[in-house]
Amino acid sequence: MGNSAYYIAAGAAGIVALLFALVLVKRINSVQPGTEKMKEIADAIHEGAMAFLGRQYKVLIIFVIALAAVICLVGLATGSGNGSLEPATAAAFIIGAVCSVLAGNFGMRVATKANVRTANAARESGLNKALGVAFSGGSVMGMCVVGLGLLGLTVVIVLVNTALPDMDISTKTSIINGYALGASSVALFGRVGGGIYTKAADVGADLVGKVEVGIPEDDPRNPAVIADNVGDNVGDVAGMGSDLFESFAGSIIAAIALAAGTPALLGGESSIAGAGLIAPILVAAIGTVASVVGGLFVRTKEGRNPAKALNLGEVVSTVLAVAGIFAVCYFVLPKTFAAAGREAPFTNMGVFLACAAGLLAGFVIGKVTEYYTSADFKPVREIAKSCETGTATNVITGIATGMMSTAVPIIIIVAAILGAYNFAGLYGIAMAAVGMLCTTGMVVAVDAYGPISDNAGGIAEMSGLDKGVREITDRLDAVGNTTAAIGKGFAIGSAALTALALFAAFANAVDLKTIDILSPRVVAGLFIGGMLPFLFSSMTMQAVGRAAGSMIDEVRRQFRNIPGLMEGKAKPEYSKCVDISARAALREMIAPSLIAIIVPIAVGILPFLGKEALGGLLAGTLVTGFLLAVMMSNAGGAWDNAKKYIEEGNHGGKGSDAHAAAVNGDTVGDPFKDTSGPSINILIKLMTIIALVFAPLFM
Amino acid sequence: MGNSAYYIAAGAAGIVALLFALVLVKRINSVQPGTEKMKEIADAIHEGAMAFLGRQYKVLIIFVIALAAVICLVGLATGSGNGSLEPATAAAFIIGAVCSVLAGNFGMRVATKANVRTANAARESGLNKALGVAFSGGSVMGMCVVGLGLLGLTVVIVLVNTALPDMDISTKTSIINGYALGASSVALFGRVGGGIYTKAADVGADLVGKVEVGIPEDDPRNPAVIADNVGDNVGDVAGMGSDLFESFAGSIIAAIALAAGTPALLGGESSIAGAGLIAPILVAAIGTVASVVGGLFVRTKEGRNPAKALNLGEVVSTVLAVAGIFAVCYFVLPKTFAAAGREAPFTNMGVFLACAAGLLAGFVIGKVTEYYTSADFKPVREIAKSCETGTATNVITGIATGMMSTAVPIIIIVAAILGAYNFAGLYGIAMAAVGMLCTTGMVVAVDAYGPISDNAGGIAEMSGLDKGVREITDRLDAVGNTTAAIGKGFAIGSAALTALALFAAFANAVDLKTIDILSPRVVAGLFIGGMLPFLFSSMTMQAVGRAAGSMIDEVRRQFRNIPGLMEGKAKPEYSKCVDISARAALREMIAPSLIAIIVPIAVGILPFLGKEALGGLLAGTLVTGFLLAVMMSNAGGAWDNAKKYIEEGNHGGKGSDAHAAAVNGDTVGDPFKDTSGPSINILIKLMTIIALVFAPLFM
Repeated sequence: MGNSAYYIAAGAAGIVALLFALVLVKRINSVQPGTEKMKEIADAIHEGAMAFLGRQYKVLIIFVIALAAVICLVGLATGSGNGSLEPATAAAFIIGAVCSVLAGNFGMRVATKANVRTANAARESGLNKALGVAFSGGSVMGMCVVGLGLLGLTVVIVLVNTALPDMDISTKTSIINGYALGASSVALFGRVGGGIYTKAADVGADLVGKVEVGIPEDDPRNPAVIADNVGDNVGDVAGMGSDLFESFAGSIIAAIALAAGTPALLGGESSIAGAGLIAPILVAAIGTVASVVGGLFVRTKEGRNPAKALNLGEVVSTVLAVAGIFAVCYFVLPKTFAAAGREAPFTNMGVFLACAAGLLAGFVIGKVTEYYTSADFKPVREIAKSCETGTATNVITGIATGMMSTAVPIIIIVAAILGAYNFAGLYGIAMAAVGMLCTTGMVVAVDAYGPISDNAGGIAEMSGLDKGVREITDRLDAVGNTTAAIGKGFAIGSAALTALALFAAFANAVDLKTIDILSPRVVAGLFIGGMLPFLFSSMTMQAVGRAAGSMIDEVRRQFRNIPGLMEGKAKPEYSKCVDISARAALREMIAPSLIAIIVPIAVGILPFLGKEALGGLLAGTLVTGFLLAVMMSNAGGAWDNAKKYIEEGNHGGKGSDAHAAAVNGDTVGDPFKDTSGPSINILIKLMTIIALVFAPLFM
Repeated sequence: MGNSAYYIAAGAAGIVALLFALVLVKRINSVQPGTEKMKEIADAIHEGAMAFLGRQYKVLIIFVIALAAVICLVGLATGSGNGSLEPATAAAFIIGAVCSVLAGNFGMRVATKANVRTANAARESGLNKALGVAFSGGSVMGMCVVGLGLLGLTVVIVLVNTALPDMDISTKTSIINGYALGASSVALFGRVGGGIYTKAADVGADLVGKVEVGIPEDDPRNPAVIADNVGDNVGDVAGMGSDLFESFAGSIIAAIALAAGTPALLGGESSIAGAGLIAPILVAAIGTVASVVGGLFVRTKEGRNPAKALNLGEVVSTVLAVAGIFAVCYFVLPKTFAAAGREAPFTNMGVFLACAAGLLAGFVIGKVTEYYTSADFKPVREIAKSCETGTATNVITGIATGMMSTAVPIIIIVAAILGAYNFAGLYGIAMAAVGMLCTTGMVVAVDAYGPISDNAGGIAEMSGLDKGVREITDRLDAVGNTTAAIGKGFAIGSAALTALALFAAFANAVDLKTIDILSPRVVAGLFIGGMLPFLFSSMTMQAVGRAAGSMIDEVRRQFRNIPGLMEGKAKPEYSKCVDISARAALREMIAPSLIAIIVPIAVGILPFLGKEALGGLLAGTLVTGFLLAVMMSNAGGAWDNAKKYIEEGNHGGKGSDAHAAAVNGDTVGDPFKDTSGPSINILIKLMTIIALVFAPLFM
């Protein structure tokens, strides 16, 4: 695990990303936040969002300390040896969690500054400037995610190498796995908590405000409107960021873990020791730099479609990343590696092709997601049409569309798996995930840009700005919907590949040569694992339902009890709604998170189940989790855009019966696409990481 | 495969069941069909249902001939040898299909006679007599299913033994597998076609009749009312019957196939040759006789709850079956069998315990199903409550409940699998399925009794009979809902166990010692297989949507164009609606059915996938299929009963906003519970049977 020059380069790439984030922050701060009213609203959103993160950290700290203690205890109990659980794993776990928290905190802090400045830029200067501010805000999140992800991981690896030089490689990698566990834990709480927060506020605000009282979206008279805008930040910015932090770090660590388990990859015939260990982190570093450069190309002119600017940025970073990966493989990796159990050796070009296969698969899944969720194509049009016969047919068509939309992504993932394996074995599968995720900086930037624009629109509405301002923010926001869909394709596709690589690493770690579906224990694991995403989704959906119920009661109460609220003469008590969402999210995120952690450990240690059953469990969760996540995300996205398509005047337009049906479908889709669906990605990986870290328990 | 005395006994049990069916037919025919009006309506239902079956057979004949030809061709191409595909397999396939068709045809023919006589018995004599007629009608279906299932299978086995005495055992069992393939094929067309028919009619009749025009259910002015009642017969009677015919025969054949692959079970240390082959068919025969006896106990008194009568019948047949299975294991099986790869030998009591574990698991899953779908318990009450905040919350809560309801059944199935395996190995898992299904005669009787009572209520309504008559049929029908839920527990539980046993037999047949999830091919199979139930459900749901759309157009057209229809002065053109449902069902059932057959064969022969991938495929379909089937059936049942609960006056009762939300939820649930959900059971088994029969292709 030598080659310190490469690690310095990787760490430097992380620092470059962080410095670029600082430059962007300066650029954002140079924009004025606008009128007093705008500042007041923005401050309320900012404070609500930061307060929620603060409360979330309190829960997280208890959780992290408890799990770190468990890791240390188990480590003591299972003793030392190859791949043993060391106290250092707990340290890496804490570092991973802290880096993820810092990235989310910093990114969201800036996002809640960028929203009002985007609105003001639109007011004062127009589209290009507003795009620049919003995209800069998103980019800060993106750069924090990859910068801290890369830097933190590099520091952990270098620390392990320096402080524990004599430790065997499998124990070293087991320590590094702790970093991924930290990232996964934060991501789960971030996604589940943030997802519940945002949808409780959204559903509550819409059902009372739009449906019962009949005031428009983002109307300042709605008591839940601030909570709704806070939700966009804690869910779609901070939650999403922690999700992709975890994906990014997890994919690199999975490749490292697999390389460590494959002696040929530690040096093989080549003179470069441990090339297989370095390649993933170098690919990630290359992608990070490519994302920085790509971000510089995002600029537009008045009247042009901002989608083109974002696309250009993505294309530039992807092309640069591919070229960079080629260079890494060509110059850093040995030409061939001997590979156990294979006729032909791996080649460095095989590793490159595996990375490229991953990048291509992520892109195609994104495009398929777009096909199923954009109003430009047949599926969403069909859903919109089905609204004419009412809510029931809309719901049926939406669910059927979501289910149908799993078919092509599954085939693409299967092709990527078989292709990457063919090019470079199990290591190839892990590298496909790394390739897919190397431009995470860009993906997160584009993803976070959406809620910032959305927030900007909300602030414009609440501050009573010109209609033209709202039109600009709406144009920015509309583009965000499509790019977000592509981002989701990357998230779920990479989750599948990463989980598969971690799964293979787990099998190595617990010394399972085969996990045989003909064994009843493995079947038992498959069944239980397959069920968990259903249980998990059920719990998160019901949590949203309960939280939205409390929100509805509170909003109704305020409209009833505050005199003059409806006439705009009195202010609603925003903070009460913010508090309801926060309390509900914190309360409801605990139980599903515990399931993700306790079940794999329980299955692994129960005498009539054991490590084979745990292998089955992970595979079962991976398969049904992938399917449910794709189905729920796409059905939700499709319902949302079908509603927007009707609002554009089709099938009767706003106020028609079809529109009412579409609103109902969209409400069903809210927890699908923003709570349960994205949380499943993390569930899949967290369970596998837990199994990998606690492997010594199952021996 | 000797022991002709046992086969004679098994065949005799089948004949007893068929004779009992004839006695029941006589009893039903002795009841008068009532007024002219009643006869006219009943004739229309009868003719519509028989006409649909006739048209379905035309498609089926083409399909059966084509598949038989494929079997012969593949047999010729792959040559002879151990387990080879013989032309005789095609013959067994045709016999299986014909027996299933005969059972369904005869059973449904009698059901469409029993419905009007149930109404008339309620009119002339009251509850007990009406219960007797309805249950007799259901019992005819039950007895035909088990009688023909048992007799046909016994004949095939005896023919194979007599005509081909020198053939090796694995080729013999591969011929017998053909019988299961025939039953599965008919079941798929029956369930998918029947499911689409019934829900297209139901949704079409309800959405226009109840919602748009505002006339009650079963109003004779509704043009789709006859199609709706026909649908109950072709879907819930004939389709359900073919489903359980397939389950019953499939479970026996899976146990035989496994026994044939396990040399010890062919004789072992005992003097009784082939005891393991005979035990499944004897257990089924015992259960058949037990069902006949149990049926005799179903009678009630005026004013008593008919549920008690049905329960008594079920308890009697279950107790008798357990006692009989004990006797079979004790007297027929050797005390111990040597078992390869196990430390301890199997014992005859182990086999008994495995059967008992299956029976118990089926019962408990049924009870859990009842918990999640009956208005007596919390989940349905919560769904009903969620209707107060509208359709969206109702749909979310219903889906969440359906997802949650998978957890306990999965744990029960896992316990049954591990328990049965512990008692008697893989053979034990197969015998658990046989044990669970041995009282199929009773299960089908109770299941088919529901739609007969439902039809009787419809006829009473359309003929303008006294309200008291409808009250009696409603009481009968309400009990049917609960018992149907328990029946669904048996259907899905046994499907999982049977598919697992067939899966093990498939692995034997293609000589796979392990199916290793660590192999990318197996993972590829798992992913694709896991996706198929989603794709299949999507297709069947969309088929219902399209068919219901045509039905809605036609019903609207008639209300618009037929003068005097609304005032009851003119008759609607019932036959047009019947024709729309029939044509849609026939057209839409083809594509999903072909997927079930083509995909496993394609995966098995593709060079980059192959038999390991096929193994993964089957496991993936089993896991997600089980989960989706349970989720969809239970969510649908829960929505239905939540609606009924509101109609009883809760949360505002009929006509309230909550009621409208509940009707929407129920409509979403219709294709869930009556088309897609039940079809998945068959998909799982049909795919496995296809893999097993075409095993020589994949070697």
